[in-house]
Amino acid sequence: MARYAMQVSYKGKDFSGWQKQPNSRTVQGVLESALELLAGHPVTVYGAGRTDKGVHALGQVVSFDLNRHWAPEKLLLAVNAHLPKDVRVMRMRYVDNSFHARYSALWREYVYFIWTGRVCFPHFSDYVWHRKQKWDISKARRACKLFWGTKDYRAFCRKSECPPSAFRTIHKAEVFSRGDLVWFRVRGDSFLTNMVRIMVGTLDYICTGKKDIDYLEELLQGKAERPDAGPTAPADGLFFWRVGYPWSLW
Amino acid sequence: MARYAMQVSYKGKDFSGWQKQPNSRTVQGVLESALELLAGHPVTVYGAGRTDKGVHALGQVVSFDLNRHWAPEKLLLAVNAHLPKDVRVMRMRYVDNSFHARYSALWREYVYFIWTGRVCFPHFSDYVWHRKQKWDISKARRACKLFWGTKDYRAFCRKSECPPSAFRTIHKAEVFSRGDLVWFRVRGDSFLTNMVRIMVGTLDYICTGKKDIDYLEELLQGKAERPDAGPTAPADGLFFWRVGYPWSLW
Repeated sequence: MARYAMQVSYKGKDFSGWQKQPNSRTVQGVLESALELLAGHPVTVYGAGRTDKGVHALGQVVSFDLNRHWAPEKLLLAVNAHLPKDVRVMRMRYVDNSFHARYSALWREYVYFIWTGRVCFPHFSDYVWHRKQKWDISKARRACKLFWGTKDYRAFCRKSECPPSAFRTIHKAEVFSRGDLVWFRVRGDSFLTNMVRIMVGTLDYICTGKKDIDYLEELLQGKAERPDAGPTAPADGLFFWRVGYPWSLW
Repeated sequence: MARYAMQVSYKGKDFSGWQKQPNSRTVQGVLESALELLAGHPVTVYGAGRTDKGVHALGQVVSFDLNRHWAPEKLLLAVNAHLPKDVRVMRMRYVDNSFHARYSALWREYVYFIWTGRVCFPHFSDYVWHRKQKWDISKARRACKLFWGTKDYRAFCRKSECPPSAFRTIHKAEVFSRGDLVWFRVRGDSFLTNMVRIMVGTLDYICTGKKDIDYLEELLQGKAERPDAGPTAPADGLFFWRVGYPWSLW
């Protein structure tokens, strides 16, 4: 038996998300099919994060076991040859048997892109939230600071999936802009369902003047509920960007 | 009668290029159809440059006449509503009746993207030449300098379309890189058919060690023919980036 880790990049558009479901095209599903075809035995893959329907990934990390040893370089080419064009294995390596893409991860990083121009270039319209309104970037920067640290994110979670404790630790949350493109980068231990998209929807309220910064401060006091926060921003703009482990994986 | 100029961006993939042809989906064709539907009379559009099949544009400039006056802002929205998703009008304005997108242009700028990594992210694989070999960037930079100025580009033109005089003036030609992404940016008065793609194919010979820099110097002496230069690099990596006029258009 050999354990492998791979970096996987995909377009979210034509997937019903990461997690395998009957009668749906999922990233986990197409990865397992490709690996099973090569290995000739059932394979289960574990992803560092479960992306929702429509969410993209540049740096999803996936671990799995195969009965025999493959040179990682050769396995990478073979898997890509069996995958549809909208998923690519970017890197592949052996890992120790104690490694687990999800449980060994120390942090996850997401990037969310917003296009604030009137018209969006067709080349990247699938990868942004086309919000035809300017964001006040200095407000965005001040608001972002409120996310730093350990806070109660119960208002930032899809209601039906909110765990008993919704405390999460955010290491970093920043907003950048260049021309009409705005992006939000956030790194944390782990995230609740829809959490990044609700963070963006809430920032949007603040940056377009619908709410002030105190509003966000209150949402993070642990007394707010899901309907109090902003809307869930569309999946198109969201990228699962990078995963951190105790040692450098690549 | 009113004359308009618009900036047009498109994905090249599903177009047989700019120029109208019977039974082909062309950018000129879809723009004229959309405008004719709005105007209720025949419309001819003129583009600053004719892009080939598969070539993209961010900043194509297009001029045309309509019988009646439209507020440019309103016309922009109306045209976009009648266009397929892979073409977008980014800006629109009135122009003087002496303006012509092609004949008034002083320079054109193209950018060509090359992905030199083993595997390409699916999000931009339609927009690069996936050349799985590293480029020697310092060689690329030295080679680029040879393009500057007025030279005979007969070896850099599709044979059947080479005009009697193939002298062209290049104002600027530069190569940049970041990680596995390399891009070539070139600005000139005007370009021959396939010229930028043959420049890239020739740079590729030099930057991957197949030829040395003297080779390019010789090609530009006016004694070489098309087969002497490098191959025509694929259309996917090429973007018609920007057009310059005697005054700022936007």
